[in-house]
Amino acid sequence: MRTLGIIGGMGPLATHDFYRKVIERTPAADDPQHIAVVMVADTQIPLRIPAWEGRGPSPLPALIRAAQHCVNAGATVLAMPCNTAHFWFDEMVAALAPDVRFLHIAEEAVRALPSGQQTAPRVALCGTHVTVAMQLYPQAAQRLGLAVDWLLPDPPTQALITQAIAAVKGGNVPAAAQAFARAADTLAVQGAELLMLGCTELPVIAPHLSSPLPLLDATDALAQACVTVCMGG
Amino acid sequence: MRTLGIIGGMGPLATHDFYRKVIERTPAADDPQHIAVVMVADTQIPLRIPAWEGRGPSPLPALIRAAQHCVNAGATVLAMPCNTAHFWFDEMVAALAPDVRFLHIAEEAVRALPSGQQTAPRVALCGTHVTVAMQLYPQAAQRLGLAVDWLLPDPPTQALITQAIAAVKGGNVPAAAQAFARAADTLAVQGAELLMLGCTELPVIAPHLSSPLPLLDATDALAQACVTVCMGG
Repeated sequence: MRTLGIIGGMGPLATHDFYRKVIERTPAADDPQHIAVVMVADTQIPLRIPAWEGRGPSPLPALIRAAQHCVNAGATVLAMPCNTAHFWFDEMVAALAPDVRFLHIAEEAVRALPSGQQTAPRVALCGTHVTVAMQLYPQAAQRLGLAVDWLLPDPPTQALITQAIAAVKGGNVPAAAQAFARAADTLAVQGAELLMLGCTELPVIAPHLSSPLPLLDATDALAQACVTVCMGG
Repeated sequence: MRTLGIIGGMGPLATHDFYRKVIERTPAADDPQHIAVVMVADTQIPLRIPAWEGRGPSPLPALIRAAQHCVNAGATVLAMPCNTAHFWFDEMVAALAPDVRFLHIAEEAVRALPSGQQTAPRVALCGTHVTVAMQLYPQAAQRLGLAVDWLLPDPPTQALITQAIAAVKGGNVPAAAQAFARAADTLAVQGAELLMLGCTELPVIAPHLSSPLPLLDATDALAQACVTVCMGG
């Protein structure tokens, strides 16, 4: 069994949500059957959105340091439950030893999309405006050769999603659920068939949502992939 | 702000529950206001109960290694959300640098008991039979000079508590809640005024319990103490 390293703290509730999904998706009846986990939740990692917008320091050195701490403590599989931080994914991989397997959240999420339909599914991407702008999900689908008809939120809808994410980070789940529900309604009207929860803060509010559309939780897809790889799959 | 190191994985759900309590007890509106956390949840740490009973290898080397990984990644405050493992607490402290502050779960729980009453509260100790037998809580109260009238479970009640703990480790929360509720009823009849949840698996089922008595959650007391110390209190 391989040890999983979690590069977290972006934010803490999202990390906590991811860790729970790893535990729940592991077939285990006692402690030793569970996956060993090392987590570095460095809440002082420079903020990703200001960095991407050129308004703040790069998080890359802190991200590499967190990954390295995980590896030093025995992790050989890595995951980072923060979509926006994946902007620095390739540079992180380049800084790590080649035997470390770093799973990409958008690739695992796209792999989990329903397949076998005649037409590509129309998927609304819900994430930070940076995750949307940097094409994290469309590029992941392209790398994997999967056809997806992406619906990117218009500015008012994006504003609601941004508001929901900020409310989760501040611990206000009811406010977050309310803002996200309004965004989901608009995306449904615009023809989305499925909502991709492409920000790790969003699944925190999923139990409080009555969405008109099915949700695909990227955090959950990443957790399942981590369990499979760590268990030797 | 000091970085918190969590020596976890005993079991994973208990660790997860502790981490949530740290997050919830931190006054924070955004990621950087949260405490930085390093967690080593090594599920392969030799089992504590067989070791204590002389039927298996000592977990001490693995516990020290986990603590050291936390320190190497920047932690200067440590907590171990597993009561039974505190049997090796003193030996772990002796192996760590003197500037590392390792908080003791039973001491923090006993400090959180209601005070100011004329007579010592009658507190039923709910934990593994090892936690009960090694006098973890009575000794902690004694060190702190606090008077507590401890009610230790009789063998049939202890068997129910043991059953509840095993069910949580196996992920079966309803079975755990049912067994624990029967133990709580007996302890109430025997004169307990408060149930000390002295095993970190037990708070996982607290939301599913209708206990006839107030509960004191040692995990929560430890989390609050960690937040206070890490925030500079």
